[in-house]
Amino acid sequence: MTASILLRNVRPYGEAATDILVENGKITRVALGIDPPAGVPVEDGRGEIVIPGLVEAHTHLDKSLWGLPWYTNEVGPKLLDKIDNERLNKRRLNIDPYIQSARQSIQSSLMGSTHIRSHVDVDTDHGLWGVEGVMRTRDEYRDIVDIELVAFPQSGLLRRPGTLELMDQAMKAGCEIVGGLDPCAIDRDPKGHLDAVFELCQRYGKPLDIHLHEPGEMGAFSTDLICERTRALGMHGKVTISHAFCLGTPDPALIDPLLAQLAELDIAIMTTAPSGRLAPVVKTLLAKGIRVCSGNDGIRDTWGPYGNADMLERAMFIGQRNNFRRDDELRLAFDVCTAEGARVMEIAGYGLKEGCAADLVMLPGETLSEAIVTRSPKRRVVKAGKIVARDGVSIRTAP
Amino acid sequence: MTASILLRNVRPYGEAATDILVENGKITRVALGIDPPAGVPVEDGRGEIVIPGLVEAHTHLDKSLWGLPWYTNEVGPKLLDKIDNERLNKRRLNIDPYIQSARQSIQSSLMGSTHIRSHVDVDTDHGLWGVEGVMRTRDEYRDIVDIELVAFPQSGLLRRPGTLELMDQAMKAGCEIVGGLDPCAIDRDPKGHLDAVFELCQRYGKPLDIHLHEPGEMGAFSTDLICERTRALGMHGKVTISHAFCLGTPDPALIDPLLAQLAELDIAIMTTAPSGRLAPVVKTLLAKGIRVCSGNDGIRDTWGPYGNADMLERAMFIGQRNNFRRDDELRLAFDVCTAEGARVMEIAGYGLKEGCAADLVMLPGETLSEAIVTRSPKRRVVKAGKIVARDGVSIRTAP
Ligand SMILES: [Zn+2]
Ligand SMILES: [Zn+2]
Repeated sequence: MTASILLRNVRPYGEAATDILVENGKITRVALGIDPPAGVPVEDGRGEIVIPGLVEAHTHLDKSLWGLPWYTNEVGPKLLDKIDNERLNKRRLNIDPYIQSARQSIQSSLMGSTHIRSHVDVDTDHGLWGVEGVMRTRDEYRDIVDIELVAFPQSGLLRRPGTLELMDQAMKAGCEIVGGLDPCAIDRDPKGHLDAVFELCQRYGKPLDIHLHEPGEMGAFSTDLICERTRALGMHGKVTISHAFCLGTPDPALIDPLLAQLAELDIAIMTTAPSGRLAPVVKTLLAKGIRVCSGNDGIRDTWGPYGNADMLERAMFIGQRNNFRRDDELRLAFDVCTAEGARVMEIAGYGLKEGCAADLVMLPGETLSEAIVTRSPKRRVVKAGKIVARDGVSIRTAP
Repeated sequence: MTASILLRNVRPYGEAATDILVENGKITRVALGIDPPAGVPVEDGRGEIVIPGLVEAHTHLDKSLWGLPWYTNEVGPKLLDKIDNERLNKRRLNIDPYIQSARQSIQSSLMGSTHIRSHVDVDTDHGLWGVEGVMRTRDEYRDIVDIELVAFPQSGLLRRPGTLELMDQAMKAGCEIVGGLDPCAIDRDPKGHLDAVFELCQRYGKPLDIHLHEPGEMGAFSTDLICERTRALGMHGKVTISHAFCLGTPDPALIDPLLAQLAELDIAIMTTAPSGRLAPVVKTLLAKGIRVCSGNDGIRDTWGPYGNADMLERAMFIGQRNNFRRDDELRLAFDVCTAEGARVMEIAGYGLKEGCAADLVMLPGETLSEAIVTRSPKRRVVKAGKIVARDGVSIRTAP
């Protein structure tokens, strides 16, 4: 499915103009004035910025309402209200994981994401319905985006007997990553929950990506338990903590020892840079050498109405959340949504150098900062050397 | 400059479809199946949502870099770094208040704002350059947007002798509102600063809109001093505090007495709903009957790169900042950017009822919530009965 193309007159990261030759899905030459080999089509880059494909490192492809009639949200305020409301209404609302993940994947791709890590619900009401649906989308839309699945016990693991067995089946079915969720706040058994998910990681030789919404001291306690198990099992570099709101607690006595452990164990942090609640400080994490990625999390689902699957908008949110005003600061937000995300997802051959995979985005803007704050929909997205979206229109349609 | 038009098949606030007849700039009839009077053009509303014009209640028209080459921000971290950097580079960067305010006003109009309150710098380096420039834009672009000016001592009032006299001249020149800025943190003389700005209000019979960035106890102290003077001078309903970050302090013992005073004195609060710092809680303010408005504040200026002058995006930010997920909550964010803003700016004849001014926006979306989270650029903007922008293109161009 790979293709060849010559991109004429593009500016990598907004720097000086060059040509980029792509052969069989790989960047083979970056230089000015390349002659296209016979049969290789030429695309006029118009002096636009070119960047590597955006990395959506945390979303929920199986549960978006994208393309469905507007859902009027009247859900209660607690986390369990949202969890129960979703599980109980999924079929009634026609949230088919295959169709909905295809819809969101197309939207994500046309906004410039070339790689997606999706958590996918596993629960006793729906079994592997979500996993099977997203896997079908993963297989059928491989030409526009790479998708990896996290088996995610959204409704709790131990509090709902039978879920752990389903998680095991999900891993057997080919999920790439083990998920988890609030060992104290939801499962109310941190030791039991963490022992179970780490055991799954060991059994299948897979990484862990755990949702941790728990704030303050409770979240710090869970983080410490995660570090303990990561060290004991030698899973350095194989664990991601998503959200980790507790790391935003303005108390160095609580946070600094945790940050030191995260750096030592190479545990990655995923932050959506939420507006209006405590969250990890991106600059601090990066300064300590901790890998940081980001994602749009839920896109227009029963949890909330927001989101358009644009990781460039997410970079802007990271900038706003972290009070980034300088261009060198905005670059950090951009890195989190590109190269840093690729490090967390262990994407091979990521970047704009010769030898890298030709997954990239051309978009207007004088500088990278301008591209981020403008978020122009006029993007051309290249996957494995093929143009898969132009100006908001994908080459693929949803079922 | 007023016009007549029949809007056929529009849905006020996303509710049931109707026609809206506009005659001489005013809404004269709202009903199904209106026949256009002779000579009145008909616009097909296509069943789109119609809302009253968005209200931009806090921005800085004189200092945007919109339309200029990209400004690489390398400014230091302190508030005074940003203030001094701007004042010292304004002419070098070619930030002409007339041209830049025209550019931003057009952008604001085509995004659907029909009313703008702009703070305008008054300082001893530039005198009334800003005020004169924005007044010229106000006069020349009256057909697309209403602009009111706040004389704003951005560099401080008492710490820079001569500024108070310039503020007096600005009011004499016709500024509609007296501005102020951080009486403790910037001027370091809260009594002197507040006595001076309230005295200007008394002299010219004008309202006050004061920037208050001061956090915690310091900001609470300044707020208390503002309340004291509002009460003593009988300026109930004539004072706005912009930002009021201190009101976001999670300490009811500090905040509740202030909120009670704000409600009693009918002092309005302007919040941009900033990501990642303490800020007033919108639902709490509204529940106490306090008027709340919003604005985009600086749009792409030397302070920071963000902003596109879209008050619908601002409504989304308010929703995200306040953790609004339900549709009835999002409606609050919308109200702040429309009717509540109109109450703060005392805009006469605001709304979609018969007799109201025909300042309105047609835009796609199934519901108001969808319109907010989608922020489609495909908007048709009507000012005084005339269509002044379609799909992001204004009838006016900048000088
Ligand atoms: Zn999530
Ligand atoms: Zn301001």
